[in-house]
Amino acid sequence: MDMDEHGTARVIKWQDVPREQLTPTLSRKAVHGERVTLAQFFLGAGTLIPMHQHENEQCSSVIEGELEFRIGSEDADPIIVRSGEVMMLPPNTPHGVRAVVDTFVLDVFGPRREDWIAGGDQYLRQK
Amino acid sequence: MDMDEHGTARVIKWQDVPREQLTPTLSRKAVHGERVTLAQFFLGAGTLIPMHQHENEQCSSVIEGELEFRIGSEDADPIIVRSGEVMMLPPNTPHGVRAVVDTFVLDVFGPRREDWIAGGDQYLRQK
Repeated sequence: MDMDEHGTARVIKWQDVPREQLTPTLSRKAVHGERVTLAQFFLGAGTLIPMHQHENEQCSSVIEGELEFRIGSEDADPIIVRSGEVMMLPPNTPHGVRAVVDTFVLDVFGPRREDWIAGGDQYLRQK
Repeated sequence: MDMDEHGTARVIKWQDVPREQLTPTLSRKAVHGERVTLAQFFLGAGTLIPMHQHENEQCSSVIEGELEFRIGSEDADPIIVRSGEVMMLPPNTPHGVRAVVDTFVLDVFGPRREDWIAGGDQYLRQK
């Protein structure tokens, strides 16, 4: 076995992952693997994430609360995602999000978010 | 926008995903995206998943319960993973798992598990 070639197994405790405050009502914890990124998002009621897209597939599991997705354009009919549900967004799908209530989400991205690692997440930091 | 090239956004309700009984004490629900696989695993206390490896990176989030991982070989010291923790396993890392108590896990794989889609999951179906 040569694990060093690919890094080493490690255990992440979410409580130890730094929480980044992106806007007054949006914060995030992110863990980057080699192929995927896991991110916890905390959205206060009413938080808007403007329409954007990325090459990464995105799977958004709502843990608590309720999200309203718009796919394709701001004018699209909203799609509600609740606890126990997952929004599966193929690569390069334009999407915007609004938190209907205070919401906690686990997002999975594949491949991992190289843009976040490089600091390119301004679309999240806008109000 | 050309979403058809990559498929279409869809919402998965976990309650509608078929649960596969792999052994008397191990069952699974799996959702395959384009780049990642999400899987819920339900392990009864004492369930053993024998040492195996795969090219997919694996991120195992324990939601409820407690898992004991062995990395590299059956003789390795166990690594305990509890609720709120994630075991990050790089690609091609040999690992075996034992459920210390009844355990519910969300596993993320990148890239997606083509072997499962093709039916190649016999290592899970052994006792």
